[in-house]
Amino acid sequence: MTKTSFYPPQRTLMGPGPSDISPQVLQALSRPTIGHLDPLFIGMMDELKQLLQYAFQTQNPFTIAVSAPGSAGMEACFVNLVEPGDKVIVCRNGVFGDRMRENVERCGGIAVMVDNAWGEPVDPELVEQALEAHPDAVIVAFVHAETSTGALSDAEVIARLAREHGCLTIVDAVTSLGGVPLLVDEWQLDAVYSGSQKCLSCVPGLSPLTFSERAVTKIQSRKTPVQSWFLDQSLVLGYWSGEGKRSYHHTAPVNSLYALHEALVILYNEGLENAWQRHRDMHNELREGLEQLGIAFVVEQPYRLPQLNAVYIPDGVDDAAVRKLLLERYNLEIGAGLGALAGKAWRIGLMGYAARSENIALCLRALESVLK
Amino acid sequence: MTKTSFYPPQRTLMGPGPSDISPQVLQALSRPTIGHLDPLFIGMMDELKQLLQYAFQTQNPFTIAVSAPGSAGMEACFVNLVEPGDKVIVCRNGVFGDRMRENVERCGGIAVMVDNAWGEPVDPELVEQALEAHPDAVIVAFVHAETSTGALSDAEVIARLAREHGCLTIVDAVTSLGGVPLLVDEWQLDAVYSGSQKCLSCVPGLSPLTFSERAVTKIQSRKTPVQSWFLDQSLVLGYWSGEGKRSYHHTAPVNSLYALHEALVILYNEGLENAWQRHRDMHNELREGLEQLGIAFVVEQPYRLPQLNAVYIPDGVDDAAVRKLLLERYNLEIGAGLGALAGKAWRIGLMGYAARSENIALCLRALESVLK
Repeated sequence: MTKTSFYPPQRTLMGPGPSDISPQVLQALSRPTIGHLDPLFIGMMDELKQLLQYAFQTQNPFTIAVSAPGSAGMEACFVNLVEPGDKVIVCRNGVFGDRMRENVERCGGIAVMVDNAWGEPVDPELVEQALEAHPDAVIVAFVHAETSTGALSDAEVIARLAREHGCLTIVDAVTSLGGVPLLVDEWQLDAVYSGSQKCLSCVPGLSPLTFSERAVTKIQSRKTPVQSWFLDQSLVLGYWSGEGKRSYHHTAPVNSLYALHEALVILYNEGLENAWQRHRDMHNELREGLEQLGIAFVVEQPYRLPQLNAVYIPDGVDDAAVRKLLLERYNLEIGAGLGALAGKAWRIGLMGYAARSENIALCLRALESVLK
Repeated sequence: MTKTSFYPPQRTLMGPGPSDISPQVLQALSRPTIGHLDPLFIGMMDELKQLLQYAFQTQNPFTIAVSAPGSAGMEACFVNLVEPGDKVIVCRNGVFGDRMRENVERCGGIAVMVDNAWGEPVDPELVEQALEAHPDAVIVAFVHAETSTGALSDAEVIARLAREHGCLTIVDAVTSLGGVPLLVDEWQLDAVYSGSQKCLSCVPGLSPLTFSERAVTKIQSRKTPVQSWFLDQSLVLGYWSGEGKRSYHHTAPVNSLYALHEALVILYNEGLENAWQRHRDMHNELREGLEQLGIAFVVEQPYRLPQLNAVYIPDGVDDAAVRKLLLERYNLEIGAGLGALAGKAWRIGLMGYAARSENIALCLRALESVLK
């Protein structure tokens, strides 16, 4: 008996990611594979690096895409920057802050937790208190845009506090990159990772990453080897570096990198400021409609992410049944709640290519019809 | 100024990987992205698991694809199976055996090296001597098909010796899977990883992986946490497992998994035995032609991989100039030598979809013309 191909349906992706992908990006994805050491591919990677620097608003020479999803980008930051015994202040206001703690501990570091409630931003005062209570801390780690709650924290202020206390920063920008302002150089962030499948609207599987000179210096002065060979960025740099011959480290995910290049070309040509504005505009359009349906937001207005709208599930509504109906009747995916918000909230994404009026119209109409 | 798309040329890929990819696989790659928790996607993953079990010839319930390249698959085996202080016998007859040593040491394990010359297979007698000299060893790690030299080692015999001495096996099957017989259950191999971009002729970026019940038991009885969060397979299994609700671990590389599914459907429908025979037949066709050109093989005939032909660069020939000409004039990629064979050998791949008479005709004619 023969096996058959898999034909996915055409969904509208308005969850926490993967987001809707432009047909242009899917086309780029399926272009002919060439070798990962082919001079034309190396040329494409140089351009990709510049495009990533634009998206991150940085001049950091160390700006690459990790050949694995955002979780591996997170781990790349921790395994390269944290040595056994290092004290790291970890801000936790959702799932991903807790994953940072896991990373610190698995590197043999000591995690000092700064907790805020789910749905709240990180409170810079609490960060300052922790820095004062732990003068031996060397890193502050926080999530810029919490994908599990839709809350935006003030990366600029937290990074300034960290610097004033001699700490480097590790910043989760998985959901923020391309959706809200993220100014790596101006805010002097040190190690910042993201994901391909959120506001860049590329396929999942890659993690854009940038390290400041300060971060690179810390890596170069390590006393112990990086515990991961695959994520050891001093080795990876031999492949991504523009100087001289590229050395083989691992086989790059060639086609996914075509897609990321294309997604970043789209972002560049739209312009970052325009993309941020579009996300704000679309958020307002969605917000008005949701409010008319009597649906309330989890996050207070000033800290709300336009690209990720966490909203309370109305009383008496069957969470799973509604999401199933949306998927089956309208081919529309919205996200379930995660962690503390599981069963209590939905997460409606307006990320990248998904931040369009037609998606919002579909979402509002479908929700209205299903909630009746 | 606007940025523009990247259009790669149509190369014929006859290096050590990525290999030529069937248009059918590229089509699957670019199908619409759906959510990684979408019930239809979960269904596809269940089928993918069965197809991987077929390719590996195993019934292991723990059979998945790591969301990153083969190097991460290697690391997934070591970080899950090796605990600090564990003694691991590592066979080294090329680049990838040495990478295994790196992995053992970064896990805090003790690597006992068994060395064979580059181009030779692993000598089972040396493995047996090492097992006798180190009765406290717990794992034997070796490369089934050395991508850096084109040598095939006897996985069945090495695994039997390991078992007789109470050791588990970690097996690199990156280049062997789909190209030469690999019988995971019959040979009782314990942790086997591969790559998507070799004889499966899928895009690079995924690493098929299977763990035996013995390997799973060892993981479950660990005294220390796995040092990698991303590669901690006890967490990953919560997503891949067919029992009950799938729990979110990381965002799966959805489109790459479509492509792997398609590549495995092609392999299933051709049949493993037929695929192995095709690789042998194509190897013989290439070998005859190369011998007529006076080109000699690095590996002795009985240990030669049909899918990866390492050959000596003829005296007086400029290695880089020839490869450049092949690429520029014929859009043909063959591989450079790696490590000890750099500058001394070429690696001509006949992997998966690349193992076709038209590729061989092109390669032989182009080489003949360029070497004149």
